[in-house]
Amino acid sequence: MSASATIDFYFDYSSPYAYLASHTIEALAQQHGRTVTWRPILLGFVFKTTDSKPLVHIPLKGDYSMHDLKRTARETGVPFVIPDNFPIGTVAAARATLWVRANHANKTDALVHALFNAYFGNNTDISDTANVLQIAGTCGIDASALEQALGDNDVKALLKTEVDNALNAGVFGAPFMVVDNEPFWGHDRLPVIDRWLSTGGW
Amino acid sequence: MSASATIDFYFDYSSPYAYLASHTIEALAQQHGRTVTWRPILLGFVFKTTDSKPLVHIPLKGDYSMHDLKRTARETGVPFVIPDNFPIGTVAAARATLWVRANHANKTDALVHALFNAYFGNNTDISDTANVLQIAGTCGIDASALEQALGDNDVKALLKTEVDNALNAGVFGAPFMVVDNEPFWGHDRLPVIDRWLSTGGW
Repeated sequence: MSASATIDFYFDYSSPYAYLASHTIEALAQQHGRTVTWRPILLGFVFKTTDSKPLVHIPLKGDYSMHDLKRTARETGVPFVIPDNFPIGTVAAARATLWVRANHANKTDALVHALFNAYFGNNTDISDTANVLQIAGTCGIDASALEQALGDNDVKALLKTEVDNALNAGVFGAPFMVVDNEPFWGHDRLPVIDRWLSTGGW
Repeated sequence: MSASATIDFYFDYSSPYAYLASHTIEALAQQHGRTVTWRPILLGFVFKTTDSKPLVHIPLKGDYSMHDLKRTARETGVPFVIPDNFPIGTVAAARATLWVRANHANKTDALVHALFNAYFGNNTDISDTANVLQIAGTCGIDASALEQALGDNDVKALLKTEVDNALNAGVFGAPFMVVDNEPFWGHDRLPVIDRWLSTGGW
């Protein structure tokens, strides 16, 4: 594999562990001469395949996860709130990201961080399309053009393809990273990716 | 909390991530002046509460987990095979461990490692009571006395109590560690425990 190959970062904007990972994945990639490809998906579709459900809806595991998320955020210094509306549908945010990635690629990083930080850092409900458009505007993206794009069949197809590709890549949760065909699931695998890229794998 | 407080290590002998963690948890505890209390439970009962199921029975996640387990074992140098019979019922192994812990405490460490290593290191089916007894014998435990104990109502009650205590402590998977009332789930949280004990928490 070329050292310039990207790290595929599969995520749902409603995943708090993906949010935490979004704060460090680019620095990690850069240390190894890699870039990050943001791949927003809809975990709801994925969970149908795996007969799974959102963390917070699982007894005991949900409570632990909230505790662990807050603890991890404190250790890493990433601002983190559990949003009032959580989990949420993220179709608009995902479609917006894919449209920007396809048409204004140099603004993708900014949009991903702005959407994630709005939701988990500032309790802004990004299931609301109006909020997605407003946030996109702050990233220098034409909100009117984006609004029109969100209803386009081509953009809907982009997201469907991204979800299908994710399932084909074995993605069942978020964050899910693929580096040189090697899969890594979970925020806690970031240091493993670091060691994997440092050593060339084992 | 006293610095001599133990680390509660909840596990099912059928959990491969708990097996991997069993190889390092004692050294981690010792570094911080702690000991390990082995708490064998039955994840089957726990999964009923959380409407969950064994990793290998979950589409995509099962395949990934097998890959990740082998990768983790290679990195840490722990011998690891996926046993022919997996997952298994571990009632006999769990009861044996609790009886030994209650009556021959100084042999508990040896028994836990011998059972885990037989199963995940050597593909020995420890759902078979005869194998549990044979392995206990290699640890200097009286196999006849243990065989009798496995049918005792008192020993059955020990396991029921241990599972109930685990659920009350919020345990939903394995390995699950509790240190000074702080819960940590998963093999990947071992370095977090290390930092938690080094810093006094955050």
